[in-house]
Order: sequence, then structure tokens, then C-alpha cells
Amino acid sequence: MMVCRGEWEATWSRKAAEEAETVAAIECSGHGKAYLDGVVLKGHQPGCECHDCYTGSDCSKFLSNCSANAGSGDPYFLEPFWTKHAASSGVLVSGWHRMGYTYSDGSYISQLLLDYLQKLHARVGNAITEGKHIVFGSGSTQLLNAAVYALSPNHSSPAKVVATAPYYPVYRTQTQFFNSRDFSYEGDTSSWINKTDSNYTFIEFVTSPNNPDGKLTKEVLEGDNVKSINDRAYYWPHYTPIPSPADDDLMIFTISKLTGHAGSRFGWAIIKDEAVYEKMLTYLEMNTMGVSREAQLRALKLLDVVLHGDDEKEIFQFAYSTMTNRWKRLKETISKSKRFSLQKLSPQYCTFFKRERDLSPAYAWLKCEREEDKNCYEILEAAGINGRQGSVYSADNHYVRLSLIRSQDDFDILINKLNTLVAKH
Amino acid sequence: MMVCRGEWEATWSRKAAEEAETVAAIECSGHGKAYLDGVVLKGHQPGCECHDCYTGSDCSKFLSNCSANAGSGDPYFLEPFWTKHAASSGVLVSGWHRMGYTYSDGSYISQLLLDYLQKLHARVGNAITEGKHIVFGSGSTQLLNAAVYALSPNHSSPAKVVATAPYYPVYRTQTQFFNSRDFSYEGDTSSWINKTDSNYTFIEFVTSPNNPDGKLTKEVLEGDNVKSINDRAYYWPHYTPIPSPADDDLMIFTISKLTGHAGSRFGWAIIKDEAVYEKMLTYLEMNTMGVSREAQLRALKLLDVVLHGDDEKEIFQFAYSTMTNRWKRLKETISKSKRFSLQKLSPQYCTFFKRERDLSPAYAWLKCEREEDKNCYEILEAAGINGRQGSVYSADNHYVRLSLIRSQDDFDILINKLNTLVAKH
Repeated sequence: MMVCRGEWEATWSRKAAEEAETVAAIECSGHGKAYLDGVVLKGHQPGCECHDCYTGSDCSKFLSNCSANAGSGDPYFLEPFWTKHAASSGVLVSGWHRMGYTYSDGSYISQLLLDYLQKLHARVGNAITEGKHIVFGSGSTQLLNAAVYALSPNHSSPAKVVATAPYYPVYRTQTQFFNSRDFSYEGDTSSWINKTDSNYTFIEFVTSPNNPDGKLTKEVLEGDNVKSINDRAYYWPHYTPIPSPADDDLMIFTISKLTGHAGSRFGWAIIKDEAVYEKMLTYLEMNTMGVSREAQLRALKLLDVVLHGDDEKEIFQFAYSTMTNRWKRLKETISKSKRFSLQKLSPQYCTFFKRERDLSPAYAWLKCEREEDKNCYEILEAAGINGRQGSVYSADNHYVRLSLIRSQDDFDILINKLNTLVAKH
Repeated sequence: MMVCRGEWEATWSRKAAEEAETVAAIECSGHGKAYLDGVVLKGHQPGCECHDCYTGSDCSKFLSNCSANAGSGDPYFLEPFWTKHAASSGVLVSGWHRMGYTYSDGSYISQLLLDYLQKLHARVGNAITEGKHIVFGSGSTQLLNAAVYALSPNHSSPAKVVATAPYYPVYRTQTQFFNSRDFSYEGDTSSWINKTDSNYTFIEFVTSPNNPDGKLTKEVLEGDNVKSINDRAYYWPHYTPIPSPADDDLMIFTISKLTGHAGSRFGWAIIKDEAVYEKMLTYLEMNTMGVSREAQLRALKLLDVVLHGDDEKEIFQFAYSTMTNRWKRLKETISKSKRFSLQKLSPQYCTFFKRERDLSPAYAWLKCEREEDKNCYEILEAAGINGRQGSVYSADNHYVRLSLIRSQDDFDILINKLNTLVAKH
């Protein structure tokens, strides 16, 4: 076909653009995606990777006896936002893009991306960055451990690392795995209230909103020898009211729960104390020599859409609307049964939306109310629903975490299975 | 301008393609680069980032009283290869590319990239991958530490980590920084010959070719309780003859010294023992939840050019020819003086090029021959040459490492400064 355009014509970038569009044109019936680095078929074309419970070369076949995936927190609910913004969110990485170890200022940190993050927090009003330092990590995962190292005293009694159940298990497993002479995991904060011996440094993980239950939380322990690591992964208008900007000494954020790009492994920490900041920089140098330049470039492009789109609130409106809708549907289903209950969250004024907002947590913290239902996970599993056991979060197994941030397919299957389960009782 | 083409036309990818080409068209006089995420000027265009000793908005101004940068191992010498292969090496990352935590097989590892790495090693003949396991890391940096953790016994006497001077300092600094109860850094292998108490596990770092001196090396310690981590970063035809494929129990490679993309933070380890492999996977999960999807996609694209270009040996020929040329020029300069000498390397048959090849090490390991020149670094520094002190590599300060793998500008300035220095004596 002959095409005439009075416009710019691609030269060397044509091949990359064509490859990307060819893969994007593989539709997978809306129940899967084809990726540039996907399964390559005989004809050397990437094929569809289907959502759970869908199969076939174009993902059109539904497997009716398949369990709902409500396990991991893959934030696929934001995918439709990015397919809608295809033109503004794509980024072409040239073969020679930033081959060296550092940016032109000798650091591992893109200054432009840092500026964008500061602008973003100012716009959303969820964190104060003024007068603070920012470091980047390969996901918040890396930063959680970097923070534990940075807050631990060297060559002294090991710091005691604690958290309040129910809590995200990585705090414990990571601290135990790295097994440093400088710190050790010492269980739940409840064991240490009024017992924070001043000969020890305590490092308290505080997750607000909390994973798994979505509650806004605060430090439990008190004292000059208590430092806290504030995991703010879910402190976005997607999931929670923003009563005021967070101003903690050490806050950790991740792009995973903001734009939905868990696979990019990009997070950032906002740090008040300069010495702690320097120790975190040392950790990042020793561990990975900073964060992949490709991940930083992509984060920049995604934040460009978030910050400079036609509608400044668009991604937040999209995320909030999707999540409130899901919570409403879930609540309606669960309310039909006395056997199950959901966590109680209170609506609250949100400074971002400038009104009291509806509930929209990332996870359901479901409880099997009957005393004899000691393993709620198994009850759900038997009904074709895969969540995560309460014990994973150091809580009672009357509880199960159900992920609400996965794809619409996953959520729809979850609701169907729950409706069937609830109807039985 | 009206353009008519009988070809495919970009739709949503046009913006990304145009942005990439616009930035690429900023020429920076051949003494710098403009990047998509570069310094943004008032007109909102990224500007030139100049090579060392060049300045001005287009990097055209040479600073004659500026020191040669022969310090860090940024592999910029490969940049011209990628600008030449602009069309085949660019990759367009869509906004929705791989948002989830895992690939479709539930792992953090792209199977297609893994296949490419196996093909690459088979083609180059520098490592045996058959019957072995491969893990990916955020640069070899992360894998070095993952390997130390994986080889250390748990809940037993800490493993003793050792290396043979001169050695890459990260082995020591990283092991000391993480300060695990499971291992400790115990200095040079020379202190442990015939003293490897079988109550302890020894972990020996072996770098071959060695950084800084380019020599092919082997384990020094012997015994069933000695495990080795073989850092094979430089075991490519760029820098060394390949006498035979490496078949060590644990080998670490990095894209940094293969394609020159240090900033991507992508490395891989080839592991014989399944239990060690599983422990390294656990480390990678606990530390960063795998490697950025963007970095993996880009590595795939770059390896596609390496493997499937018109000329199968092209990148190796390019790298070898650049590096032999640099070594010849350096040798010619240094041979004019008795005050300085270079490491002695022997030409050897290379199974890749199928002939005895010339020398082309990544670094010069320069020695100040006079006894009184106890700080060779300062002598060079006074002559406007910034290398790295011998003591950084746990060697005598009569030695200095000079990086030969930086940009042509850096190398040319280095040779000029050396010629002036040598002419003085």
C-alpha cells in the first residue's frame, strides 16, 4: 500500500517501532498479551501469554474448572490505563543509550527522574520531600533491606528488627536471610512494648496502609533507640484516603503500586537523615551499583504520562474508580454470608480528591468467622479460590488475603467463585 | 515535506520513535552524547553530555589542561558498534510491557534470553552451559554476593572468603559490607596455602582473565572444603585468547564487558550444583525479586544483534581490533621509557579466532620500576593521568591500573599524556 504523509518519517527507529506494533497487534481475545520477549513460535512470532483460566493460541478458550488467582499482588488492574495511553507511554531505547556505569554527575541516579518524583509527591500530597534525600532501588524490596543495614549500628549489639502482625512477610524473611552480624529479626512489636532496652537499637517496620489489611497505621514502639522504616507502597489515592502528606524519617515507595509496573523493579526511598542516606547509597553501590538505566528511563516515561497528561488526575481517577468498584462488588458478595467477613475500614477525608472517598483497598483481609474454620485458606481453595494464608502474614489462619489488584479477568473469576461459595451456605 | 512510501506506517509508536531520533540527531561534535533522559535545557530538549575534557553546548571545546580519565572500567569503546547498528539494536518498550512480577512460567527469568545466552556461549566457545543452571542478576555485582551466600554453610562456622592479589576490590568490600554470620573476608589466598582447615568452608574468588592484570588464572587453594567463584567477566575474545571453554562449578558473566552496557546492570551465573543454584535463586528473590524486565528485554535485543547479525563474529572482531590497536599504541609509548613497564602477557592460540592472537587486555597494569617511585599513582596524576592505585587491588603502590576500555577520546588523551610523560625522562 502506498502511503503519503506530510510528516516526519522514521529512519533507524522504524524496525523497533514496527516490531513493537506487530506484537501489540496480536490481540489474544482480550484475555492475554503478546510481548516482544514472549514465547516464540515456529514462525518466529511471539505468541499470546494467556491470563489464568484462559487458553488456546488466542486465549479465547475459558477453562471453567480453573481456580481464581487471588494470590500475588501483580498490579495488572492498571494495564488498561497503559494500553489506552500507548502513544505517550512507549519509549524507544537506542542501542547506545547510557552504556556507562554512571550518569553525567557520577551518580547512579537520574536527576530528571528524581525531579519527577518530587513533583509527583507535591502534586499528590502524599509525602514531604523538601529538605530530604532520595535514593533509588531495584524495587522497594531492595530498599527495605538497604534501610535495615543503614539503620543498624556497626560493631555493636545487633539491632532488633520488628513488625506488627499482620505484616508483609518479606520484612522477616529478608532480615533472616541476610543474617547480618548487625541485626536480627525479633518478632512482633507486641513483645517489646515498654521493653525497648536502650542498649539496643530497634528497627520497626511500619506499613501504612498496611499489607494485608489496608489500615492506616503508626509506629507502636517508642523511644530514642527506636527507628522506623515506613513502607508507603500503598499510600496512593488508588487504595486509601490521603489525610496528610507523610513526613516520616524513612519512607519507601515503589512504582509497582503506583503505575502498576512490578516487573520494572523500581522503588525509591525518601530519607531525612544524611548519614542514613549515605549508608543506603553505599548499600546500593555494594549490592547492584544502582538501578538499571532501562528501568529508570521507563519510569521517567511513565511518570511523564502521570504528571503531564491532559488530565492531571487521570491515573488516580482510573485506579480509584476500578478499585472502589471491585470493593463494592466484593462487599456485596461477602455481605450475603455470615460465614465470612471483610476488614473494617472507615471512609475518611482525602486531601487529594478533596472529599470523603469510598473504600478501595488493594487486598481483602477475609475472615472465616466460624471458630471451627481454622484453615480459611483450605475452605476457599476447595471452592476454587487461591488466596494467601493468614499465617504468611504472621496472623491467624482464620484469615486469608485476597488480591484485588490483578487483571479484570482474575477479579471476575474470583467474584464468581465467591458468589457460588456464598450461595452454598 | 511530503513523503510517500510504499511501506508500513507507524501509529502509536511514532511518538517514541520520533523522540529517539530527535535525541540521536544531536551530534555533540563526536565528543559527547545526548540521551532521552539527559539534562533538559530551557527549550525542553535534552542537551549534550560531553566526554571528559570536552565542553560547550555541542562538546566542541577541548580543555587542554584536563587530566586523562583512565580510572573506571566504563566500556565505552563498544559504543561505536551500537551507533553503527542503530536500526537492529533499538527496542521500543510499550507502556504495558510485562507489568507483572514474573514471566509466564512463574520465574523472574526470560527463557528466550536464557536460550540466547546458551547459544552465545556455544558459538564463542568460552563456557560450557550443558547440564548446568543459569540465574540472572543485576550486574555481576549482585551475583558475586549471591554466590558467596549460596556457597556458605548455614548455622555453622562462617565460610572464609579469600582472593589472590592483585584482585578486584568488590570481592572484599562487598563481603565485609554484608557482614553475614555465615561468612567473613579472610584476606589473600597466600596466607591459606596448605592451611585450609577442613572444619571451615573456603570460598575463593578466581578472576580469569584477572582484573587488573589480564592474566588467565586458576584456583590457588585445594581441598574438598574449597569452593570457588569464577568471575569470567573478561573471558571474551575482546580481551583474551579463549584456549578452551570454561567449565567451572560457578561462573559469573556480565553484559557490561560483552556488549559494553554497564548501565543495564545485567549479569548471569552458570552453576553446576542444583542446591547452589536454588540458594542463588532465593538470594535473588529476597534481594530484588529478580532483574528488571526492561534490562532483560534490552539484553535480548543486544544479543540478537550479536548472534544474528550478518557477520557472526562482527562484535568480537570490532572489540578485538579496537583493543589490540590500543594495546599496541600503549606498548609503543611505554617501551620508550625504562621508568615504566606493562604486565607481561603471552600470545596464545584462540579457539574462537582459530589462530594465535595479539594481546588486547582491558587494563594496563603499569609499574613504576624505580624503587623510590613508591606511589606510582601520584607520579601519573602529576602528569595529568588518573588511574587507580595498586593498593585498591591489594597490591603494591608501584602499580597503577589504567583503563583501556573507555571512549576513544579518553584513550587518545591518555596516550598523549603518557607520551609527554615518557618524553620527559
